[in-house]
Parts: sequence; structure tokens; C-alpha cells
Amino acid sequence: MTKEAHLSREQIEAMDKCYRVAFINSLPGYKSLNLIGTQDESGQTNLCIVSTVTHFGSAPPLLGFVSRPATVDRHTLSNIIDTDSYTINHVGAAYYRAAHQTSARYPREESEFQATGLTPVWRNGLTAPFVREAPVQIHLTPVEQIDIKSNGTVLIIGEVTDVYLADELIEADGNIDLGKAETVCGSGLDGYYAPEKLARLSYAKVGKELTDI
Amino acid sequence: MTKEAHLSREQIEAMDKCYRVAFINSLPGYKSLNLIGTQDESGQTNLCIVSTVTHFGSAPPLLGFVSRPATVDRHTLSNIIDTDSYTINHVGAAYYRAAHQTSARYPREESEFQATGLTPVWRNGLTAPFVREAPVQIHLTPVEQIDIKSNGTVLIIGEVTDVYLADELIEADGNIDLGKAETVCGSGLDGYYAPEKLARLSYAKVGKELTDI
Repeated sequence: MTKEAHLSREQIEAMDKCYRVAFINSLPGYKSLNLIGTQDESGQTNLCIVSTVTHFGSAPPLLGFVSRPATVDRHTLSNIIDTDSYTINHVGAAYYRAAHQTSARYPREESEFQATGLTPVWRNGLTAPFVREAPVQIHLTPVEQIDIKSNGTVLIIGEVTDVYLADELIEADGNIDLGKAETVCGSGLDGYYAPEKLARLSYAKVGKELTDI
Repeated sequence: MTKEAHLSREQIEAMDKCYRVAFINSLPGYKSLNLIGTQDESGQTNLCIVSTVTHFGSAPPLLGFVSRPATVDRHTLSNIIDTDSYTINHVGAAYYRAAHQTSARYPREESEFQATGLTPVWRNGLTAPFVREAPVQIHLTPVEQIDIKSNGTVLIIGEVTDVYLADELIEADGNIDLGKAETVCGSGLDGYYAPEKLARLSYAKVGKELTDI
């Protein structure tokens, strides 16, 4: 029998800052990992890794992410607002180290693309650069910017305008095979994981047995 | 060379509804999977699986999740508002099928705990039930309810008040070992995955080589 820990609010607040940040960042469970690509009005590109991209709706297709002034590059947020254009690119197993390196605090005049060796690619006349190495590349325009009163972070919600991915990753029912894509996920502040598929399960109904699909 | 697909906004809107929902739900990459436990003022319990729990901040400790009227049980949202109490419980590899089954539309008088065999447990005088089987169990009180104008979904942000987990899951620096916890993650609407650790990487600095930690 393992010993169970109970961390109360008072104990959480008394934690050393770095310890608390690592602990609280672990609480959601595994996180999506994506690179957000933008450029400013002079064409200077920017790339930063985020672990908060979340599905908000399918019609219209909406994704959100949290911009935390202290940790996500402010350049990203100002570029999105200035150009109405950004990309979300899955982090792949082949270059998760380069993706992690984009979280270093590069000065505005140094592009994270150049610093990390990831390749910017422009498509279809869209402003923001995509990451060529990414198995799934998404372009969005921002539609809502929501200030979170509790701590001053900002939730950016965008509409998906274009998606680029290998044809073979899309299954017959529209699902994207993330295992085949070699997309990775994260934990805490710095953990990188390659998921192994357990199952896809049938639509759940009251009184009906689940089946594998 | 695999063939690349470009899905434009027009093509996305022209997709069959089920196909589009599966496709757009796959876009964020892997998602956290958690069970939200609540009860109403008469003590009737409710449990539902969500894939949108997101870290919003560590001081104060804040987690958010998206309540979509069409897919997440409305009972959860009204119970949170009525009782100021809810729990977030990691979905574990041992019971991901029971967790998936909570997404069926049970009537209010039938608890998803009873229907799926998961075990409610009350702790420390808190109103909302935890899931005994979950490796990480978190209690929160709601602090912000944000209406998303673009599609009528609701973002609930809560403050973490208590965390319960096995002592051995907490690493020396505060990080929770999700692999040891056997927490799972999801993809799309119905994919379940067990992540394999690739690495933990050092804090990224400009001009400094990353190391494994």
C-alpha cells in the first residue's frame, strides 16, 4: 500500500516557487504540445511552444490557447493581434528538443526558427509561417481575446482557416491518426512523451456495451 | 513521398457533421483526460469525462475546462455553480473504458458512478465526490465562468484547494510522474493512449545546450 499525500491549499501556497510551478503544471495530466508561428509587420518571424491548445468547438472550428505573460513570448501575442494570422503546428517526435528550445528568451530580432533549426514555410498567401517539419499544420485568425481576471493571463480563441497534413493521416471517419503522425505530448513543464494507442471506443450510450472501433 | 492534403475553410464547412467533429477534435493533438465529479444540493452525484482541462496559472493554482452544452453534461455545470465545489480526477489506464462510458446521456436521477462502477469518495468535509480509482484527485472551487461569444460554450476556471495522490508520484522537484501514475491521454473524440516517456529537458536558455534531467 503506497502512502497517500494530501496537499492542502495552505501547503501548496507554502511550496517553494519552482516546486509549486512544476507541481501545479502537472495537475491537468498530459498536455497537447504545439508550436505557434507568427511574424510581425516587418516580416520578423517568431515561434514558441505552448501546452494549452484546446478544442473549443467544431462549427465554427475554434481552438484556444493561454498566453501567460511571464512564460509565453509576448511577441507572439502582439504579432497575432497586429497581423490577424497565426499557425499552430504539432510537435513531432523527431524535433521535440528544438521545440523545447523555442521557450528560451530570444530577443525580438532573433527568430526562434533560425535559432533552433526549424524551417518556416509560407503557404497560400497567408501571413504567418508554418513549421515545415510538423505533421499537422493549422492556420487561424483570432476571433476573441479574453482577459482572465484571476491572474491576468489571456485566452486567445481563433478560427481555423486552413489545415495541412499528410493525406494518409486522416482516417475514414475524419479522425487524425496522431500515432502515425508521431505527434508527442507533454507533462508538467518539461516532460515529453510518445503515446501508445490503447483503443478507440464506440460512442457511449446508456445500457449499451462499448466496443473497439 | 506522401501526398499532402490542404483542407480549406470551405472544405471544412462542407464536411459531413460527424466527420468534421472528429477531424476538428483531432487538431489540438493529444488531450488531457479527466473525470469531473460533482453533486447537487440533494446529494445526487454526477461524473463526466472531459478532455479540455488546462493549466491557467500556478499562483494562485488555477485550472480551466470548457463546458460544451451539447456534449458535456449540463448537470455538471449547474452542480458546480450551486455547490461551489467540484473535483478533477485523472483517467487511469485501468478504467478508461468506464471513464468513456460516463459520456453517455444518463438521466439526472442515475449517477454515472453507479452506472460505470467507479467509486465515489468524500474527503475532508468537501461537497463534491472524488473518484477513488484515480491516481491524482483534485478539489476546486469555481472562480470565473466565462461565456465564449463565438459559440456559446462556457469556460469554467477554478482554484485548486486540495490535491490527493500517492506520495511516490511526486518527484524531488515537484513534478508529478504521470507515467508511474498510469494516467492516460486522449485524441479526437474517442482515442485512448498510454504515453511512453521520451525525456525531461532542462530549462531552455539562449545559446545553451539542452540536457536530460
